Amino acid sequence: MQAVSVNHALGEELYELAARIFPICRSITGDGVRRTIDILAAYAPFERKEVPTGTPVLDWEVPKEWNIRDGYIAKDGKRLVDFRRCNLHVLNYSTPINTIMSFSDLKTHLFTLPDQPTVIPYRTSYYHENWGFCIAHDQLGELERLGGPFEVVIDASLEPGHLTWGEYVLPGRSKREVLLTTHICHPSLANDNCSGLALMALLARELARSERPVTYRFLLIPGTIGSLTWLALNEAAVGNIMAGLVVSCVGDAGGPTYKRSRRGDTLVDRAFAHVLPQDAPGHRIIDFFPYGYDERQFCSPGFNLPVGLFQRSQFATYPQYHTSGDDLDFIKSEHLAHSYAIIRRAIGIIESDRVLVNLFPKGEPQLGRRGLYGKLGGTADAWRANMAMLWVLNLADGEHSLLDTAERAGLPFELVARLAAVLEQAGLVRPKAEAL
Amino acid sequence: MQAVSVNHALGEELYELAARIFPICRSITGDGVRRTIDILAAYAPFERKEVPTGTPVLDWEVPKEWNIRDGYIAKDGKRLVDFRRCNLHVLNYSTPINTIMSFSDLKTHLFTLPDQPTVIPYRTSYYHENWGFCIAHDQLGELERLGGPFEVVIDASLEPGHLTWGEYVLPGRSKREVLLTTHICHPSLANDNCSGLALMALLARELARSERPVTYRFLLIPGTIGSLTWLALNEAAVGNIMAGLVVSCVGDAGGPTYKRSRRGDTLVDRAFAHVLPQDAPGHRIIDFFPYGYDERQFCSPGFNLPVGLFQRSQFATYPQYHTSGDDLDFIKSEHLAHSYAIIRRAIGIIESDRVLVNLFPKGEPQLGRRGLYGKLGGTADAWRANMAMLWVLNLADGEHSLLDTAERAGLPFELVARLAAVLEQAGLVRPKAEAL
Amino acid sequence: MQAVSVNHALGEELYELAARIFPICRSITGDGVRRTIDILAAYAPFERKEVPTGTPVLDWEVPKEWNIRDGYIAKDGKRLVDFRRCNLHVLNYSTPINTIMSFSDLKTHLFTLPDQPTVIPYRTSYYHENWGFCIAHDQLGELERLGGPFEVVIDASLEPGHLTWGEYVLPGRSKREVLLTTHICHPSLANDNCSGLALMALLARELARSERPVTYRFLLIPGTIGSLTWLALNEAAVGNIMAGLVVSCVGDAGGPTYKRSRRGDTLVDRAFAHVLPQDAPGHRIIDFFPYGYDERQFCSPGFNLPVGLFQRSQFATYPQYHTSGDDLDFIKSEHLAHSYAIIRRAIGIIESDRVLVNLFPKGEPQLGRRGLYGKLGGTADAWRANMAMLWVLNLADGEHSLLDTAERAGLPFELVARLAAVLEQAGLVRPKAEAL
Repeated sequence: MQAVSVNHALGEELYELAARIFPICRSITGDGVRRTIDILAAYAPFERKEVPTGTPVLDWEVPKEWNIRDGYIAKDGKRLVDFRRCNLHVLNYSTPINTIMSFSDLKTHLFTLPDQPTVIPYRTSYYHENWGFCIAHDQLGELERLGGPFEVVIDASLEPGHLTWGEYVLPGRSKREVLLTTHICHPSLANDNCSGLALMALLARELARSERPVTYRFLLIPGTIGSLTWLALNEAAVGNIMAGLVVSCVGDAGGPTYKRSRRGDTLVDRAFAHVLPQDAPGHRIIDFFPYGYDERQFCSPGFNLPVGLFQRSQFATYPQYHTSGDDLDFIKSEHLAHSYAIIRRAIGIIESDRVLVNLFPKGEPQLGRRGLYGKLGGTADAWRANMAMLWVLNLADGEHSLLDTAERAGLPFELVARLAAVLEQAGLVRPKAEAL
Repeated sequence: MQAVSVNHALGEELYELAARIFPICRSITGDGVRRTIDILAAYAPFERKEVPTGTPVLDWEVPKEWNIRDGYIAKDGKRLVDFRRCNLHVLNYSTPINTIMSFSDLKTHLFTLPDQPTVIPYRTSYYHENWGFCIAHDQLGELERLGGPFEVVIDASLEPGHLTWGEYVLPGRSKREVLLTTHICHPSLANDNCSGLALMALLARELARSERPVTYRFLLIPGTIGSLTWLALNEAAVGNIMAGLVVSCVGDAGGPTYKRSRRGDTLVDRAFAHVLPQDAPGHRIIDFFPYGYDERQFCSPGFNLPVGLFQRSQFATYPQYHTSGDDLDFIKSEHLAHSYAIIRRAIGIIESDRVLVNLFPKGEPQLGRRGLYGKLGGTADAWRANMAMLWVLNLADGEHSLLDTAERAGLPFELVARLAAVLEQAGLVRPKAEAL
Repeated sequence: MQAVSVNHALGEELYELAARIFPICRSITGDGVRRTIDILAAYAPFERKEVPTGTPVLDWEVPKEWNIRDGYIAKDGKRLVDFRRCNLHVLNYSTPINTIMSFSDLKTHLFTLPDQPTVIPYRTSYYHENWGFCIAHDQLGELERLGGPFEVVIDASLEPGHLTWGEYVLPGRSKREVLLTTHICHPSLANDNCSGLALMALLARELARSERPVTYRFLLIPGTIGSLTWLALNEAAVGNIMAGLVVSCVGDAGGPTYKRSRRGDTLVDRAFAHVLPQDAPGHRIIDFFPYGYDERQFCSPGFNLPVGLFQRSQFATYPQYHTSGDDLDFIKSEHLAHSYAIIRRAIGIIESDRVLVNLFPKGEPQLGRRGLYGKLGGTADAWRANMAMLWVLNLADGEHSLLDTAERAGLPFELVARLAAVLEQAGLVRPKAEAL
């Protein structure tokens, strides 16, 4: 019972957008973030927001701004390791350096993956000042053989500046808010997280095209410090968040994986629990744990927001994770489109779930007289539509929502919602309260 | 651990009674219902109750009364399809007709089962006036070859009259009521539902023979419109219903199947959940869904009564369902007797479950001093009796009923109830309140 | 993930102590109990407590005191059955006798196990005055062949006296109390219960060596009448019991088996549910039932205390149970030490479980700044320690205890508790209230 339809043209567009932002060297601050937001703003008007270095945010403080222009290890003028070829080569948030040193002095600043000797690891040193290079393990031996002296240059700045993020609010009929957030702090890693950024931009574009029952807020934020900053600035307003989703790593072939909110049974959790078994045979639904992406902050005990995480392969479970192997060959347009379709469907459930009241609750109302009952010899679809109507009538007791009804009936939410609308038009049910 | 004993003589009597009412052409109104009630009234004094056509009942209205005397398709005076040979041949609730027509005009009024070409389907058209014949699919080809002209006669009346049902109340010490109900609207279908009607009559006869702790109400009602009518007339009194059971299709070899009430965990649900695993290895217990028999009405959200459904094979899951294949060979006396025994046992649990209070709750009372403790080297039965006593004492805290105790102890309810009576006589426990 | 360490020297010491008290003929009253307490008092100062015969205790009464000096069946002055060789030979609580009789008069006073013809059964007749001998079934035939006359002597006394038990209270910082209790009424049966008595003595010795957050109470009591007596005398104080454990039969190779308290989900139940899967691959956790050891009395509905039972093989499930087969070869030092380690660990959880409050609940506090975060490339242990910290912070919402946290995190309690202490020292969490 696949209910989502995967849009191939959209998949291509998602891939192209991810590819376009792939080369930019992003970090938790700096111009890479600004440039990425500006590109995505062509799809939906994301606003660039900033707070200065040193701003206290909850238990943390906004760090210095990092910008990098170049970086290399050279010998005799020949670049052996070159930031311009792959921005993963420089330890993200490296302090600047410009010196000449032997291999033995250099080697404590070199990071490799001995288990995957041909790929470049992605490493950061955000809150502990350090400099370094990430290289393939095979190249380490090569440098050792050369011995030096090496010219070691990182042309970067780490200075007071700003923390930057993108934000876009789409008002709806209700102030109740669906929060959609993704991290913007990773450099040239395709799945993690050019894929998520592209998905957010195109999803925002689509949702902007029609009226919305609820408000949507999109965040493109640096991991950890970005969500902490946003939470610190918006503490008073988080009560409006009825559901939230962290989106990341949505382009690979695995999963998909849904990680529940800390509360575990909120509307967003139940929406994905409804959608995934129908639309993603290989899916996994896992419980919350306090590690991973920004759900850690949204689900900290002082906020405890109803925010889940959607990914394809779970982070840190595949060899390409946080390496140069997470490149544009690792993501595919079909997976991007599938991720998009699933998230879009779950959002549709979240925004349209509601509780109805049966106006003829004693016995069944006579559907045949109102032309609502399927004919003799009806198709399987007519049968399912009839069952959906009977279920809506039976559970429209002011205590069950349409999602409750769909789950208990074993029918897709959308079918139940469609027949509920038919019954509402026929005057047989009415909403318990305003739509959510 | 089979606890019910199946009574073979009773099985024969059930079969004979089902066979006796089998030939009558019943519908949701009319003389077939009246004649059936009169036959069953020889076993227990079911009262014939009626309301006139046009009476509003909840969202519905009592329809015209239908009676039929004859019906046939003939050619050259020879009856090819004959109501007198099988009353399924006439579409139930057909309007009268008396005409001559060709096959091509006739054929839209002929109903067959292409997948089962030798059997006659059972079809109705209660709330949409129409006429028609139900025939074996093989005969359709034969009529087509003959081509006509055919004499087409349905000697029926569809006129203002009454809706009729049977009702019998057996008062008990408590006004709390067990509702037992079955449908009386089907013509010559043995399992569906001559079997249920026969079972209800003999069960009423048995329950009338001794004092009852609770009141029993038996209903023999036309499907849907009958329960709607009864509910409309008895709306104020339904609060007395502590448990209810829709009984239908109790003579075939399948199941048995118990379908839970909408609430899912009421006393009748728990009684069958206790009995069936012990007494019916092939049983199925399924959740409520808003389709099926009159549990649809009793479990509509405005009533939400604790009413389940007992059947053998689940309706619509066997090829004989609603066809001439549901004849007197399809039901067996042994299945009738087994169904009877299971329902009888479940009723026994429902009427005798109660909550006790241990009068010596601190430590165990000394059973040996009171002669209550099994002797050394006791048999397995003595052991089970001892365990039943210890469980009753341990759970007689005013919060657990005997059924709770039996379930937690893994012992048959009747053993637990018997030892509870022993403990009550010994002054060790007392009822928390009057028996239910 | 084995967390307990088994101490071999302690196992030897347990075995030797069990062997030392093995020869004593104990019963529910009498000098055997007194002598056993005196031996165990060398390890921990158990106090001998007594109440006189005839004292009413709840629904019971303290029985006469039984003491035995000798007992035999002889022919021609030659002892054929001799209490001095095995104290199981005399029916425990036998009235005295000194007579000469034929086999046919004697035989109703002889107890054997036909299914195990070479072992002597252990039988008692506490509350019904009787005399008798327990012998191997093979010997029954031998006596029958000899025919008699037999000299039949039981040199015992059954007279007004006292009921005796051992009690030892180890005060802790809190009055909340952990009750540890074992039965002292069995004669020469090694597993049932010299093993339990030895374990209690050495456990009391260990717990006395350091400060305790909670109070411990050790009881060495005659089965049933001992717990009833203690409960009758301490009724007002049982509210202090936060957890309790009946310990018995802890030296055989089976299980171990944990039987839940009547409530089923108290702290002691949850502690064993945490420990056993990690430390005892063959363990079984079973629900409460009102038969067995003194948990029957502690879990009677009027007390309903949080008291479970720890054994190795479940009682009455092994052929040596209550026979001369339960000798010093049936228990092993390694099983005694394993039982000790498991109980010790569970107690450690019980006494140190507590609820914390995160003082920085909004977002994660910055662990790195405080030097709390694991370094890059940390080992699996560092990873687990980090996860434990994050879990403690996430669930320190005043509603989850450390055991809740350990269970949800899938980490050993002790690791979680250790990191909780680190976080407390760092000023990130504080106890919700005084430690339990």
